[in-house]
Amino acid sequence: MIRAAIVGASGYSGAELLRLLAVRNDVSVERVTANAAAGQRVDAVHPVLAGEVDLSFEALEPDRLGDVDVAFVALPSGEAMKVVPALKESAGRVIDLSGDFRLRSVPLYEQYYGHPHTAPGLLSEAVYGLPEINREWIAHARLVANPGCYPTSAILGLLPALQKDLIAAEGIVINSLSGVSGAGRSAAPELSFVEVNENVRAYKVGNHQHIPEIQSVLEQASGRAVSVTFVPHLVPLTRGIYTTIIADLKVSLTETELVQLYKSAYRNAPFVRVVRQIPQIRNVAYTNFCDIGVTIEQRTGRLVVISVIDNLIKGAAGQAIQNMNIMFGLPEDTGLK
Amino acid sequence: MIRAAIVGASGYSGAELLRLLAVRNDVSVERVTANAAAGQRVDAVHPVLAGEVDLSFEALEPDRLGDVDVAFVALPSGEAMKVVPALKESAGRVIDLSGDFRLRSVPLYEQYYGHPHTAPGLLSEAVYGLPEINREWIAHARLVANPGCYPTSAILGLLPALQKDLIAAEGIVINSLSGVSGAGRSAAPELSFVEVNENVRAYKVGNHQHIPEIQSVLEQASGRAVSVTFVPHLVPLTRGIYTTIIADLKVSLTETELVQLYKSAYRNAPFVRVVRQIPQIRNVAYTNFCDIGVTIEQRTGRLVVISVIDNLIKGAAGQAIQNMNIMFGLPEDTGLK
Amino acid sequence: MIRAAIVGASGYSGAELLRLLAVRNDVSVERVTANAAAGQRVDAVHPVLAGEVDLSFEALEPDRLGDVDVAFVALPSGEAMKVVPALKESAGRVIDLSGDFRLRSVPLYEQYYGHPHTAPGLLSEAVYGLPEINREWIAHARLVANPGCYPTSAILGLLPALQKDLIAAEGIVINSLSGVSGAGRSAAPELSFVEVNENVRAYKVGNHQHIPEIQSVLEQASGRAVSVTFVPHLVPLTRGIYTTIIADLKVSLTETELVQLYKSAYRNAPFVRVVRQIPQIRNVAYTNFCDIGVTIEQRTGRLVVISVIDNLIKGAAGQAIQNMNIMFGLPEDTGLK
Amino acid sequence: MIRAAIVGASGYSGAELLRLLAVRNDVSVERVTANAAAGQRVDAVHPVLAGEVDLSFEALEPDRLGDVDVAFVALPSGEAMKVVPALKESAGRVIDLSGDFRLRSVPLYEQYYGHPHTAPGLLSEAVYGLPEINREWIAHARLVANPGCYPTSAILGLLPALQKDLIAAEGIVINSLSGVSGAGRSAAPELSFVEVNENVRAYKVGNHQHIPEIQSVLEQASGRAVSVTFVPHLVPLTRGIYTTIIADLKVSLTETELVQLYKSAYRNAPFVRVVRQIPQIRNVAYTNFCDIGVTIEQRTGRLVVISVIDNLIKGAAGQAIQNMNIMFGLPEDTGLK
Repeated sequence: MIRAAIVGASGYSGAELLRLLAVRNDVSVERVTANAAAGQRVDAVHPVLAGEVDLSFEALEPDRLGDVDVAFVALPSGEAMKVVPALKESAGRVIDLSGDFRLRSVPLYEQYYGHPHTAPGLLSEAVYGLPEINREWIAHARLVANPGCYPTSAILGLLPALQKDLIAAEGIVINSLSGVSGAGRSAAPELSFVEVNENVRAYKVGNHQHIPEIQSVLEQASGRAVSVTFVPHLVPLTRGIYTTIIADLKVSLTETELVQLYKSAYRNAPFVRVVRQIPQIRNVAYTNFCDIGVTIEQRTGRLVVISVIDNLIKGAAGQAIQNMNIMFGLPEDTGLK
Repeated sequence: MIRAAIVGASGYSGAELLRLLAVRNDVSVERVTANAAAGQRVDAVHPVLAGEVDLSFEALEPDRLGDVDVAFVALPSGEAMKVVPALKESAGRVIDLSGDFRLRSVPLYEQYYGHPHTAPGLLSEAVYGLPEINREWIAHARLVANPGCYPTSAILGLLPALQKDLIAAEGIVINSLSGVSGAGRSAAPELSFVEVNENVRAYKVGNHQHIPEIQSVLEQASGRAVSVTFVPHLVPLTRGIYTTIIADLKVSLTETELVQLYKSAYRNAPFVRVVRQIPQIRNVAYTNFCDIGVTIEQRTGRLVVISVIDNLIKGAAGQAIQNMNIMFGLPEDTGLK
Repeated sequence: MIRAAIVGASGYSGAELLRLLAVRNDVSVERVTANAAAGQRVDAVHPVLAGEVDLSFEALEPDRLGDVDVAFVALPSGEAMKVVPALKESAGRVIDLSGDFRLRSVPLYEQYYGHPHTAPGLLSEAVYGLPEINREWIAHARLVANPGCYPTSAILGLLPALQKDLIAAEGIVINSLSGVSGAGRSAAPELSFVEVNENVRAYKVGNHQHIPEIQSVLEQASGRAVSVTFVPHLVPLTRGIYTTIIADLKVSLTETELVQLYKSAYRNAPFVRVVRQIPQIRNVAYTNFCDIGVTIEQRTGRLVVISVIDNLIKGAAGQAIQNMNIMFGLPEDTGLK
Repeated sequence: MIRAAIVGASGYSGAELLRLLAVRNDVSVERVTANAAAGQRVDAVHPVLAGEVDLSFEALEPDRLGDVDVAFVALPSGEAMKVVPALKESAGRVIDLSGDFRLRSVPLYEQYYGHPHTAPGLLSEAVYGLPEINREWIAHARLVANPGCYPTSAILGLLPALQKDLIAAEGIVINSLSGVSGAGRSAAPELSFVEVNENVRAYKVGNHQHIPEIQSVLEQASGRAVSVTFVPHLVPLTRGIYTTIIADLKVSLTETELVQLYKSAYRNAPFVRVVRQIPQIRNVAYTNFCDIGVTIEQRTGRLVVISVIDNLIKGAAGQAIQNMNIMFGLPEDTGLK
């Protein structure tokens, strides 16, 4: 029995972790923290979990987390790094869902996140938790940095093409559309129903904090300098990331060869489906799958990749559990299919 | 040229007033107030109005509103009554969109609104601004209390049946569904997209402040004691009120007779359409119409009335302008068709 | 291992059955039929199931269904009764999700469904598959008529009050709001996105085929003559039924007593949650729960019950599996929590 | 008084034309055709127009359209070209909203539209009705080809940058998101609410019929060979086009200079607003505006342009009326603000 804690469990990722872990017989969620909701029952904050989860939130004391085997940290970036060092001591393993341990470079972090990094000593040790790249490293990690939702879709969409040197590594365009749950549980006026419904808006054009994450992970995995233009958009749906990638092909190949190459690259990845139809969010919603479709635009010789996930599952809680499974030597898809 | 001011113009009703008045050649909006947005241009707060409205918000000084013929007050209930007395002195006429002057009874107001009434002296003078009932009174009013969105749909749906004594006045059931803009421009967490989308929830069951408004207006118009059960629901759309009313028929008549009776009751009402198909919100959205459909349930001998409006137009800004037209001797539908 | 077949598996209920059964180790879906999709792989029609279900649709030959223990029938009303008699012979047990075997009265069926009943001999044998009423009968049934989505929410909301004789059995008002998936997978113009989005519309006012189902089941369970007014509405969401019920209380009791009475009535029902907060669809979406909230309107002495389900799960596929569990002697909630 | 006819008025663009023309005192819609709805009242098909439009649909006889000054053609591509030649004889002027007369090249048309062109003789005469480029030509045109919705947003977003030679004309990436009304009034299963809601999907990747329209119009206006990658996506909203364009800057300039350049290019265009905030669909919905925002991504030296319209207004009916205004010597914005 894996004893788990969830730190910062009052938000959407926390709720999703609780929901996905509730069905497991081999995992027991022992403690859930949420400072603002301390003392409240979990099902008072997440009524959907009534009858499924019988726990109450407690305030976080990171150095006294007690006897757990793994702590999931679902705090905002900037908050997570304040507690992860102590958690790493008190819990056996830590899976951090924030952006705090995904970049190796402190200056890049501080440039894009806009505040100092207070635990730089852990950056070199943290393993980027994208199993399709780092399965081996994750298996032995003590601290996993769970990938961002946009990077998960973008990196999985680009990885085979970059690794096989099919495309120019510069000038890549990534347009992503995100459901609103990606912004977290928030009362921000711009996330109110009336502002989002029947609307679309781009945001953080050219300066989103996921840009260095996408670039550095792709560089590390492909051994090439990568430069992307990334434009995220908010669209009126609750869940899902829809990422459309355009890149210049450097080689001549058929669409069938391309599909085979992608299928081959992901032959051991139980949650990546290389599909022949154009991907749709509804095919991955409420699942841990990433659906990828690849097309060659004959007229321009460009590659068009579409990569789709559920931002709360493969983009957050599901991938965290996938990482946990790997860390504890379980089949990677336990509890996720 | 009618010179108008809009007090509290940074919300959804204020924006709608500005939009509807911008097309008028016979009305000039001279001043717009919004304390929190004072100094900002209107199109910075309402970008949809860029190129249409060339004004900036100012802070409200109710006793120095300057030379206007009519002031629209689009403040929340509780705030409006603080400024209406002074506005009535400085402006020629006041149309108040809040709930502060709709009830004649101070105790009822205080029971349902939960705070003291600070301008009770104006209650007897205020005219309830539902043109289909009070056209004559509105024409001579100095202070018009613009009806609530739910009451507009419910009262128009019930009025002919009550006035003709077709139905029992007790035991009426009113189920209403509202778009989210009815809750105002707000950052409340329960109005965020993720909480509203793919969701429905009833609220204020049995104690909504529109209950005494519906009952007292119907009592006054029909001369009978009226009792309703009213359940409002929030549904995932931006605009619209869908009201389904069930009442016990006391007389025997055919559906055709019923429709004729309703049509006859509204023969002089340019914005009430008695329709043969079941009403839909999309048929009234962005219009000042109220669509009403009436059916007799043969099995139970009950009347089913469905009454539908756009909550921001017939339920707020459009009706306010309809009232202004009447107060200034213009054709009632000027600028509204 | 329970060997199952799903007849008519290309629609939304069929997809949901496949999804929910795919996680079971103790159930094997052997065959799936869909005449229009015969020969196609399941994941070509339901791409969400790629990697989860490895089956192809076949055309239905009801008398040669082969070696299965249970057949789920997810055909439209009128189609189901053509194949159920033969299926009952070839499969051990049949769970029919259509309306064809829910009413005992042939004339009532023909009045409300608008076509003749072609298998009236099975009506007396079919067990109405609402476990909260008929658990014992279901356990021994060969043919289960799975309840309609509206009736599931309405009956569960009314049952305790009627059985304890708290309310008048006549004059009950049931207003229901349904997500669009309840209408099935259809290309009807009135179900297109543009017609449904930002819209609400009532339909089949006073003559919906679920009226006799609600009334007759409640009459049987309570021993009283029941009469309801039922108004269904289509609202812009994919999943969920929101049912608001109003009835006249005959006795005096407190809200706390009322809640206790409901909790007690459902103490052995693992999927009914009597909740203190007002129910919301989002709390039951993607679950087999029915959430019920009860309130007394003090002013009118009326009972307001709100009862909420996911129409595809507790209102269709989930309840069908719950019935299967009971029929095969398994814990009722196997694979559903 | 301009006497107008609308050919094919039962769809969404037809309804929008009727709604926008109903408020005009200087235009009289004399005839509306719709073969499938011939004989029906307009408000039976478009209930929103009840009380606004008092006309019935008739079957189209293009050579006997009678005494009108202008005919709007709102038929699908492929249908329009069958009737436009005769209409041009019977009516004084024709504004065609289909794609049939937008391309000069018959082979390109046939490649992208998939059927032969039956009226090639009119192609050289037709004027592409984008007033911001062709105002002078439109003024004297007898046949105006009203632009597509995607091309309107894309061309207006790219035009100043191409004309001033700021960007590379090859390798431009255009990602567009469209509301569902852009697909027309249709019962296609993939446009049903359940398939579109909570979903996103790209379609016609690399082969959409608007690609040659965008390229050829930009080539003609800029005098350069233009090549674009265009990926259209369907998103869950009713109205709106959101177009995000990425191009390589060839020159060095500041964002302020860029904005000034765009403002200057559109200084005489009453419906193009160059905005400083990131554009949003809700700011242009139900208007004839195109909002354009421009940004320079410093890291990559790329231009990001976002261009947003209401697909039914600036992308169809509104632009058609703007063209009519120009053709009849009226102020361009008559009836559109």
